[in-house]
Amino acid sequence: MTHQELLTADVIRTAVTNYLDAVSAGPSRTIAALYAEDATLEDPVGGEVRVGREAIEAFYSALDGVDCKTELLTVRVSGNNAAFHFRVVTEIDGKAYAIEPIDVMTFDDRGAIASMRAYWSPSDMTEL
Amino acid sequence: MTHQELLTADVIRTAVTNYLDAVSAGPSRTIAALYAEDATLEDPVGGEVRVGREAIEAFYSALDGVDCKTELLTVRVSGNNAAFHFRVVTEIDGKAYAIEPIDVMTFDDRGAIASMRAYWSPSDMTEL
Repeated sequence: MTHQELLTADVIRTAVTNYLDAVSAGPSRTIAALYAEDATLEDPVGGEVRVGREAIEAFYSALDGVDCKTELLTVRVSGNNAAFHFRVVTEIDGKAYAIEPIDVMTFDDRGAIASMRAYWSPSDMTEL
Repeated sequence: MTHQELLTADVIRTAVTNYLDAVSAGPSRTIAALYAEDATLEDPVGGEVRVGREAIEAFYSALDGVDCKTELLTVRVSGNNAAFHFRVVTEIDGKAYAIEPIDVMTFDDRGAIASMRAYWSPSDMTEL
Protein backbone atom coordinates (compact mmCIF):
# COMPACT_ATOMS: atom_id res chain seq x y z
CA MET A 1 0.00 0.00 0.00
CA THR A 2 2.63 2.49 1.08
CA HIS A 3 6.39 2.47 0.79
CA GLN A 4 6.69 3.78 4.29
CA GLU A 5 9.03 2.16 6.81
CA LEU A 6 7.07 0.30 9.45
CA LEU A 7 7.54 1.53 12.99
CA THR A 8 7.29 -1.03 15.78
CA ALA A 9 4.09 -1.25 17.79
CA ASP A 10 6.06 -0.18 20.89
CA VAL A 11 7.26 3.00 19.18
CA ILE A 12 3.68 3.86 18.23
CA ARG A 13 2.31 3.08 21.70
CA THR A 14 5.01 5.34 23.18
CA ALA A 15 4.10 8.11 20.72
CA VAL A 16 0.45 7.86 21.83
CA THR A 17 1.48 8.05 25.49
CA ASN A 18 3.75 11.02 24.78
CA TYR A 19 0.87 12.76 23.05
CA LEU A 20 -1.52 12.27 25.97
CA ASP A 21 1.18 13.40 28.41
CA ALA A 22 1.72 16.54 26.32
CA VAL A 23 -2.03 17.26 26.25
CA SER A 24 -2.02 17.03 30.07
CA ALA A 25 1.11 19.14 30.56
CA GLY A 26 0.85 21.60 27.67
CA PRO A 27 1.60 24.12 26.32
CA SER A 28 0.08 24.03 22.82
CA ARG A 29 3.50 24.52 21.21
CA THR A 30 4.79 21.32 22.83
CA ILE A 31 1.73 19.37 21.70
CA ALA A 32 1.99 20.72 18.14
CA ALA A 33 5.69 19.77 18.03
CA LEU A 34 4.64 16.10 18.12
CA TYR A 35 2.96 16.59 14.73
CA ALA A 36 4.67 16.52 11.33
CA GLU A 37 5.03 19.94 9.64
CA ASP A 38 2.25 19.17 7.11
CA ALA A 39 0.05 17.13 9.44
CA THR A 40 -3.76 17.26 9.49
CA LEU A 41 -6.13 17.37 12.44
CA GLU A 42 -9.91 16.74 12.36
CA ASP A 43 -11.49 17.13 15.81
CA PRO A 44 -14.31 16.21 15.87
CA VAL A 45 -14.46 13.94 12.81
CA GLY A 46 -16.78 15.54 10.26
CA GLY A 47 -15.68 19.03 11.32
CA GLU A 48 -13.00 21.36 9.96
CA VAL A 49 -9.72 19.75 8.86
CA ARG A 50 -6.80 21.84 10.13
CA VAL A 51 -3.67 21.58 8.02
CA GLY A 52 -0.11 22.26 9.16
CA ARG A 53 1.58 22.61 12.52
CA GLU A 54 0.69 26.28 12.93
CA ALA A 55 -3.06 25.63 12.56
CA ILE A 56 -2.68 22.64 14.87
CA GLU A 57 -0.95 24.73 17.56
CA ALA A 58 -3.79 27.28 17.27
CA PHE A 59 -6.29 24.45 17.84
CA TYR A 60 -4.56 23.28 21.04
CA SER A 61 -4.08 26.84 22.31
CA ALA A 62 -7.69 26.59 23.59
CA LEU A 63 -6.24 24.27 26.26
CA ASP A 64 -3.45 26.64 27.35
CA GLY A 65 -4.05 27.56 30.97
CA VAL A 66 -6.83 24.95 31.35
CA ASP A 67 -6.32 22.21 33.93
CA CYS A 68 -6.53 19.08 31.83
CA LYS A 69 -5.70 15.48 32.77
CA THR A 70 -5.60 12.57 30.33
CA GLU A 71 -5.61 8.82 30.86
CA LEU A 72 -5.14 6.15 28.19
CA LEU A 73 -7.86 3.48 28.35
CA THR A 74 -7.10 1.31 25.28
CA VAL A 75 -4.76 1.49 22.32
CA ARG A 76 -4.70 -0.61 19.14
CA VAL A 77 -1.83 -0.44 16.68
CA SER A 78 -2.20 -1.43 13.02
CA GLY A 79 0.85 -0.79 10.85
CA ASN A 80 1.92 2.86 11.30
CA ASN A 81 -1.52 3.71 12.66
CA ALA A 82 -3.12 3.75 16.08
CA ALA A 83 -6.64 3.97 17.45
CA PHE A 84 -6.99 4.76 21.12
CA HIS A 85 -9.70 5.33 23.68
CA PHE A 86 -8.80 7.79 26.40
CA ARG A 87 -10.26 9.92 29.13
CA VAL A 88 -9.85 13.70 29.46
CA VAL A 89 -10.87 15.53 32.61
CA THR A 90 -10.89 19.34 32.37
CA GLU A 91 -11.64 21.82 35.10
CA ILE A 92 -13.54 24.91 34.07
CA ASP A 93 -14.78 27.47 36.61
CA GLY A 94 -14.31 24.98 39.45
CA LYS A 95 -16.35 22.26 37.73
CA ALA A 96 -14.79 19.06 36.34
CA TYR A 97 -15.94 17.63 33.01
CA ALA A 98 -14.96 14.21 31.62
CA ILE A 99 -15.02 12.96 28.06
CA GLU A 100 -13.69 9.70 26.64
CA PRO A 101 -13.08 10.09 22.89
CA ILE A 102 -11.65 7.56 20.45
CA ASP A 103 -8.85 9.07 18.37
CA VAL A 104 -7.12 7.62 15.34
CA MET A 105 -3.65 8.67 14.25
CA THR A 106 -1.26 7.92 11.43
CA PHE A 107 2.48 8.36 11.97
CA ASP A 108 5.28 9.18 9.58
CA ASP A 109 8.62 7.33 9.33
CA ARG A 110 10.08 9.38 12.16
CA GLY A 111 7.18 8.68 14.52
CA ALA A 112 5.67 12.19 14.19
CA ILE A 113 1.87 12.41 14.03
CA ALA A 114 0.88 12.74 10.35
CA SER A 115 -2.87 12.86 10.98
CA MET A 116 -5.29 12.83 13.89
CA ARG A 117 -9.06 12.37 13.82
CA ALA A 118 -11.13 12.48 17.03
CA TYR A 119 -14.46 10.66 17.37
CA TRP A 120 -16.75 12.16 20.00
CA SER A 121 -19.99 14.13 20.38
CA PRO A 122 -20.73 16.96 22.81
CA SER A 123 -23.35 14.62 24.38
CA ASP A 124 -20.50 12.29 25.46
CA MET A 125 -19.31 14.92 27.96
CA THR A 126 -20.28 14.37 31.61
CA GLU A 127 -19.97 16.65 34.63
CA LEU A 128 -18.15 14.93 37.49
CA MET B 1 -17.19 19.72 4.76
CA THR B 2 -19.68 17.42 3.05
CA HIS B 3 -23.17 18.06 1.75
CA GLN B 4 -24.32 14.79 3.26
CA GLU B 5 -27.47 14.62 5.38
CA LEU B 6 -26.60 14.08 9.02
CA LEU B 7 -27.94 10.89 10.56
CA THR B 8 -28.80 10.95 14.24
CA ALA B 9 -26.37 9.42 16.72
CA ASP B 10 -29.03 6.82 17.61
CA VAL B 11 -29.31 5.71 13.98
CA ILE B 12 -25.54 5.29 13.79
CA ARG B 13 -25.33 3.45 17.11
CA THR B 14 -28.08 1.08 15.89
CA ALA B 15 -26.19 0.53 12.63
CA VAL B 16 -23.06 -0.43 14.62
CA THR B 17 -25.09 -2.85 16.77
CA ASN B 18 -26.71 -4.36 13.66
CA TYR B 19 -23.26 -4.84 12.15
CA LEU B 20 -21.90 -6.64 15.20
CA ASP B 21 -25.05 -8.81 15.39
CA ALA B 22 -24.60 -9.70 11.71
CA VAL B 23 -20.93 -10.62 12.29
CA SER B 24 -22.08 -12.95 15.11
CA ALA B 25 -24.95 -14.51 13.17
CA GLY B 26 -23.60 -14.49 9.59
CA PRO B 27 -23.65 -15.41 6.79
CA SER B 28 -21.19 -13.21 4.86
CA ARG B 29 -23.93 -12.15 2.41
CA THR B 30 -25.99 -10.69 5.27
CA ILE B 31 -22.96 -8.80 6.63
CA ALA B 32 -22.02 -7.46 3.19
CA ALA B 33 -25.62 -6.26 2.65
CA LEU B 34 -25.06 -3.69 5.43
CA TYR B 35 -22.41 -2.03 3.22
CA ALA B 36 -23.06 0.42 0.40
CA GLU B 37 -22.53 -1.00 -3.12
CA ASP B 38 -19.24 0.92 -3.59
CA ALA B 39 -18.06 0.69 0.03
CA THR B 40 -14.45 0.13 1.07
CA LEU B 41 -13.04 -2.15 3.76
CA GLU B 42 -9.49 -2.03 5.21
CA ASP B 43 -8.94 -4.74 7.82
CA PRO B 44 -6.38 -4.43 9.28
CA VAL B 45 -5.61 -0.75 8.67
CA GLY B 46 -2.47 -0.55 6.51
CA GLY B 47 -3.43 -3.74 4.66
CA GLU B 48 -5.34 -4.28 1.40
CA VAL B 49 -8.32 -1.99 0.75
CA ARG B 50 -11.22 -4.06 -0.58
CA VAL B 51 -13.63 -2.13 -2.80
CA GLY B 52 -17.25 -2.99 -3.48
CA ARG B 53 -19.80 -5.26 -1.86
CA GLU B 54 -18.66 -8.38 -3.72
CA ALA B 55 -15.08 -8.06 -2.46
CA ILE B 56 -16.44 -7.28 1.00
CA GLU B 57 -18.62 -10.41 1.00
CA ALA B 58 -15.56 -12.45 -0.04
CA PHE B 59 -13.66 -10.99 2.92
CA TYR B 60 -16.35 -12.01 5.43
CA SER B 61 -16.78 -15.45 3.85
CA ALA B 62 -13.75 -16.49 5.95
CA LEU B 63 -16.16 -16.35 8.92
CA ASP B 64 -18.87 -18.53 7.32
CA GLY B 65 -19.24 -21.67 9.43
CA VAL B 66 -17.01 -20.26 12.21
CA ASP B 67 -18.54 -19.85 15.67
CA CYS B 68 -18.09 -16.14 16.31
CA LYS B 69 -19.55 -13.99 19.08
CA THR B 70 -19.25 -10.19 19.25
CA GLU B 71 -19.81 -7.74 22.07
CA LEU B 72 -19.78 -3.93 21.82
CA LEU B 73 -17.54 -2.35 24.47
CA THR B 74 -17.62 1.38 23.52
CA VAL B 75 -18.95 3.44 20.66
CA ARG B 76 -18.34 7.10 19.80
CA VAL B 77 -20.34 8.90 17.13
CA SER B 78 -19.02 11.98 15.33
CA GLY B 79 -21.22 13.26 12.51
CA ASN B 80 -21.96 10.37 10.13
CA ASN B 81 -18.99 8.47 11.52
CA ALA B 82 -18.46 6.01 14.33
CA ALA B 83 -15.49 4.55 16.18
CA PHE B 84 -16.13 1.52 18.33
CA HIS B 85 -14.22 -0.88 20.52
CA PHE B 86 -15.59 -4.41 20.55
CA ARG B 87 -14.76 -7.96 21.50
CA VAL B 88 -14.83 -10.94 19.15
CA VAL B 89 -14.56 -14.50 20.43
CA THR B 90 -14.06 -17.18 17.78
CA GLU B 91 -13.87 -20.93 18.28
CA ILE B 92 -11.42 -22.76 16.07
CA ASP B 93 -10.69 -26.48 16.55
CA GLY B 94 -12.23 -26.44 20.02
CA LYS B 95 -10.09 -23.50 21.17
CA ALA B 96 -11.52 -20.03 21.85
CA TYR B 97 -9.65 -16.89 20.81
CA ALA B 98 -10.53 -13.32 21.78
CA ILE B 99 -9.58 -10.05 20.13
CA GLU B 100 -10.80 -6.52 20.88
CA PRO B 101 -10.26 -4.29 17.82
CA ILE B 102 -11.19 -0.65 17.38
CA ASP B 103 -13.09 -0.11 14.11
CA VAL B 104 -14.01 3.15 12.45
CA MET B 105 -16.89 3.46 9.98
CA THR B 106 -18.42 6.14 7.81
CA PHE B 107 -22.08 5.87 6.84
CA ASP B 108 -23.95 7.14 3.81
CA ASP B 109 -27.26 9.07 3.88
CA ARG B 110 -29.25 5.84 4.09
CA GLY B 111 -27.24 4.48 7.04
CA ALA B 112 -25.33 1.93 4.94
CA ILE B 113 -21.64 1.44 5.78
CA ALA B 114 -19.60 3.49 3.29
CA SER B 115 -16.20 2.56 4.73
CA MET B 116 -14.76 0.40 7.48
CA ARG B 117 -11.21 0.38 8.84
CA ALA B 118 -10.16 -2.03 11.60
CA TYR B 119 -7.29 -1.27 14.00
CA TRP B 120 -5.71 -4.40 15.51
CA SER B 121 -2.53 -6.44 15.43
CA PRO B 122 -2.21 -10.25 15.47
CA SER B 123 -0.42 -9.81 18.83
CA ASP B 124 -3.69 -8.46 20.32
CA MET B 125 -5.27 -11.93 20.01
CA THR B 126 -5.44 -14.01 23.19
CA GLU B 127 -6.36 -17.67 23.72
CA LEU B 128 -9.10 -18.08 26.34
